[in-house]
Amino acid sequence: MQDNKPDVKESLERVGVAGLKTIVMTNWKGRRYNFVPEIDLTLDLDKERKGVHMSRLVESITECIECEVVIRHGSLEAVERDILDMLRKRHPFNNAEISMKTDIVIPKKTPVTEKTTMEAYGVEVKLMLDKGEYRKKLKVSVVGNTVCPHAMNNCEGKTHVQRAVGILEIETSYENEIDLEDMVDCVEDAFPSRVYTLLKSEDEKHIIEKMFKNPKFVEDVTRGILNNAKKRFGNAKVRAKTISEESIHRHNVVAEGSCDV
Amino acid sequence: MQDNKPDVKESLERVGVAGLKTIVMTNWKGRRYNFVPEIDLTLDLDKERKGVHMSRLVESITECIECEVVIRHGSLEAVERDILDMLRKRHPFNNAEISMKTDIVIPKKTPVTEKTTMEAYGVEVKLMLDKGEYRKKLKVSVVGNTVCPHAMNNCEGKTHVQRAVGILEIETSYENEIDLEDMVDCVEDAFPSRVYTLLKSEDEKHIIEKMFKNPKFVEDVTRGILNNAKKRFGNAKVRAKTISEESIHRHNVVAEGSCDV
Amino acid sequence: MQDNKPDVKESLERVGVAGLKTIVMTNWKGRRYNFVPEIDLTLDLDKERKGVHMSRLVESITECIECEVVIRHGSLEAVERDILDMLRKRHPFNNAEISMKTDIVIPKKTPVTEKTTMEAYGVEVKLMLDKGEYRKKLKVSVVGNTVCPHAMNNCEGKTHVQRAVGILEIETSYENEIDLEDMVDCVEDAFPSRVYTLLKSEDEKHIIEKMFKNPKFVEDVTRGILNNAKKRFGNAKVRAKTISEESIHRHNVVAEGSCDV
Amino acid sequence: MQDNKPDVKESLERVGVAGLKTIVMTNWKGRRYNFVPEIDLTLDLDKERKGVHMSRLVESITECIECEVVIRHGSLEAVERDILDMLRKRHPFNNAEISMKTDIVIPKKTPVTEKTTMEAYGVEVKLMLDKGEYRKKLKVSVVGNTVCPHAMNNCEGKTHVQRAVGILEIETSYENEIDLEDMVDCVEDAFPSRVYTLLKSEDEKHIIEKMFKNPKFVEDVTRGILNNAKKRFGNAKVRAKTISEESIHRHNVVAEGSCDV
Repeated sequence: MQDNKPDVKESLERVGVAGLKTIVMTNWKGRRYNFVPEIDLTLDLDKERKGVHMSRLVESITECIECEVVIRHGSLEAVERDILDMLRKRHPFNNAEISMKTDIVIPKKTPVTEKTTMEAYGVEVKLMLDKGEYRKKLKVSVVGNTVCPHAMNNCEGKTHVQRAVGILEIETSYENEIDLEDMVDCVEDAFPSRVYTLLKSEDEKHIIEKMFKNPKFVEDVTRGILNNAKKRFGNAKVRAKTISEESIHRHNVVAEGSCDV
Repeated sequence: MQDNKPDVKESLERVGVAGLKTIVMTNWKGRRYNFVPEIDLTLDLDKERKGVHMSRLVESITECIECEVVIRHGSLEAVERDILDMLRKRHPFNNAEISMKTDIVIPKKTPVTEKTTMEAYGVEVKLMLDKGEYRKKLKVSVVGNTVCPHAMNNCEGKTHVQRAVGILEIETSYENEIDLEDMVDCVEDAFPSRVYTLLKSEDEKHIIEKMFKNPKFVEDVTRGILNNAKKRFGNAKVRAKTISEESIHRHNVVAEGSCDV
Repeated sequence: MQDNKPDVKESLERVGVAGLKTIVMTNWKGRRYNFVPEIDLTLDLDKERKGVHMSRLVESITECIECEVVIRHGSLEAVERDILDMLRKRHPFNNAEISMKTDIVIPKKTPVTEKTTMEAYGVEVKLMLDKGEYRKKLKVSVVGNTVCPHAMNNCEGKTHVQRAVGILEIETSYENEIDLEDMVDCVEDAFPSRVYTLLKSEDEKHIIEKMFKNPKFVEDVTRGILNNAKKRFGNAKVRAKTISEESIHRHNVVAEGSCDV
Repeated sequence: MQDNKPDVKESLERVGVAGLKTIVMTNWKGRRYNFVPEIDLTLDLDKERKGVHMSRLVESITECIECEVVIRHGSLEAVERDILDMLRKRHPFNNAEISMKTDIVIPKKTPVTEKTTMEAYGVEVKLMLDKGEYRKKLKVSVVGNTVCPHAMNNCEGKTHVQRAVGILEIETSYENEIDLEDMVDCVEDAFPSRVYTLLKSEDEKHIIEKMFKNPKFVEDVTRGILNNAKKRFGNAKVRAKTISEESIHRHNVVAEGSCDV
């Protein structure tokens, strides 16, 4: 049925499965990670074919991750590359994309008391096969804050502070090795201060003093992320966005920019 | 089919439709409101009946709100009462519940420059018919902020500030007239400061100074909401909750309490 | 402060407010609409300027919609154009964008019993000012269904059916008048059958028979939307996506395509 | 500051942290699980105390899960019990609650071709310490489907089918050992058919035939869940809910019930 001619002859860009959850394990530089990502896997469809054989997409995912006694993959993009390579043997396509959206938890130390604290970050790793070439898009989403420099100036040192989310997206070749933790650092270093799950009173005091010495608009944070990415990475397209959940408004303020590095 | 005996004889507490969207209009004390609420409507089901005739629930809603040339209802609970009364003629039940979840937009003035600003609040109005008696639950969800008194003390007047959401829920008889705008006031007055969609520099300065003079934990805000509701309303069960979206943590902090008034 | 030079000199593409809710009214061909949309409004920022004056963006919105005794705008894009025109007098920019995301409720008749039923659709209207030229992006999101032709063939006429969401996006000039209701029709006509809020037994029977005579993959629905848009609209870029919430899987299947019309 | 007297003297029921994400590992009957749950941890607050020392709540969590070389806990409720026991040494309270919300992935076999397929379920495990006694609430959320028996009867064997979500909640003593996988089975067995991530054509045919032989209203599914729980578990309060994402409507239909077992 899927191989029949369709009634309407239009080629489609992305056909496949979305929101599929499963277990994925990686071994990144000696540290083992377990994920339950949401996976999207799509391919293009010729205008002469009615449909995609969806079960072959799912099989390419499940066979690739199944029963891993030895963890074979160093990164999420390496898992994805295996899935796309396996799919190519099962189903015709010109272009295909796979993305995995998950949380990564990194142990850190609190700034003054140096206690261990676990910090969670949203990540998305997408691999695209376009005319035989692999490109990847890596994205991290990091919680921090903004501290309004305008109000600080206007109110003798007092100001409004709020939670903000900084997002960094890097598009580059498959081969360009980029550590998600380095991307997280680029975002965290652009905020007035990093935030932590655990903070004792001394840590809290340290952070608040840092924030008030270092006030930043949402625009400053986005520019800082771009600048940090420029120093750290190469041969890539970089996009940054910051969303500030204003404490004096019901709405958010946002700043978005991009550059080549 | 619905009137058959079911295979498993268990009575059910709530059977019906959920997430139904439609237009509802009210005329509350001379001011006209247009809503597109999400409606849930459920009734109980006897253990001897297989199913509910769902289309009769939908008909009770649509006929009640259809083609209103003259707006007949003063409040959302009045619309709901008409729907339950209409349903009673169509379908047997002992208990039934209907709720409408929507936004209400109220024009306000900015605190210093006195410009008009439109402020949106989440509201939910639920009517329950339990053994022939109507009870209602009114809920408002209001954006504000918290300002940490502990950090202010610990950091020579500097502190962390963040957006917070205050929720007030009142359960009372159908007849007890309660204005959603008064409920919104109870919550807004419990924050270190109200927030506004529009703020010119002078307004912003005023608000920040108010916030720093009036630091509050999430616990203080919740207690303030309860206290304001005690002064304003009677013959009701009151529940309050505040969620503070911490600017120095990835997680939120919360405080919840209740009392009879 | 905003007019100072920033520490990092990067131009930004989109800086502004997001998720602002307010009341917007339109009069589209004699029928009055009341909306509470979520509004995003952003403009680009030169690399020599530290920040955007956010309150001027909010003022452009509030003054444009405030106290409308006579409803002056025929469409959401007309409201948006007025806001961008007002913003231009207040704040420098090269490019700006405004979008409104809301629900539209349209009265329809059930297919057999011809009862009135109210149907809600998600819409998003975006206006972009790029080098002095206005372009708009209109988007509708419509609930329908898919009926698997492969399973129908494989199981002697039985098959899996499920809710699906069809999305149509049209990018065109400001002047190209396009009715959101026509866009909704393009999507609804591409499903195996339309869905309705109210359905009496005869209506339900009619719809199910139509669905089983007209089985469609998610790919067929997307192609149908593109084809319907081709017949109805001109001078536009069209994008369609269908998301099928599979009743035999935990995940969704999707199909996405685009064409010029 | 937290130990001061508050301005408003109201005791609060639940004060604490919400939405905290971290890594939790368990070893349930020899099988190792890694989770990144969302954790809520709250305690009650006396009316004479201004605030809770929030960092002590976070410390109780982080110290309990930190650096587990040997996995010490068999279940999520065992982790939670350790956290509450640790919290009791750090902070006064009468009542406290902790919940963890996460995904659990279970390997299964497809029904005909017997291929391995990974299936994800939403789970929530809550432990409550109330007057010195531990009670737990276990909840699973499972995707399945409904198949309308009324339409099948009315349309000569054709009917509308749709995705549904079944929820089972069990409240019992801490000591009553209940396997989340058994709870998942109770829900899956109540649907017209289980659903699978991977389905080859023969599996799909098997499932569709099973669905059409076994049509069920949302009411039937909820009653089935209650009945399955009655047979499997004891000394508990059971609650079940089913949400059917109708393929012929924009809205959902729901059925909810409870019983003691």
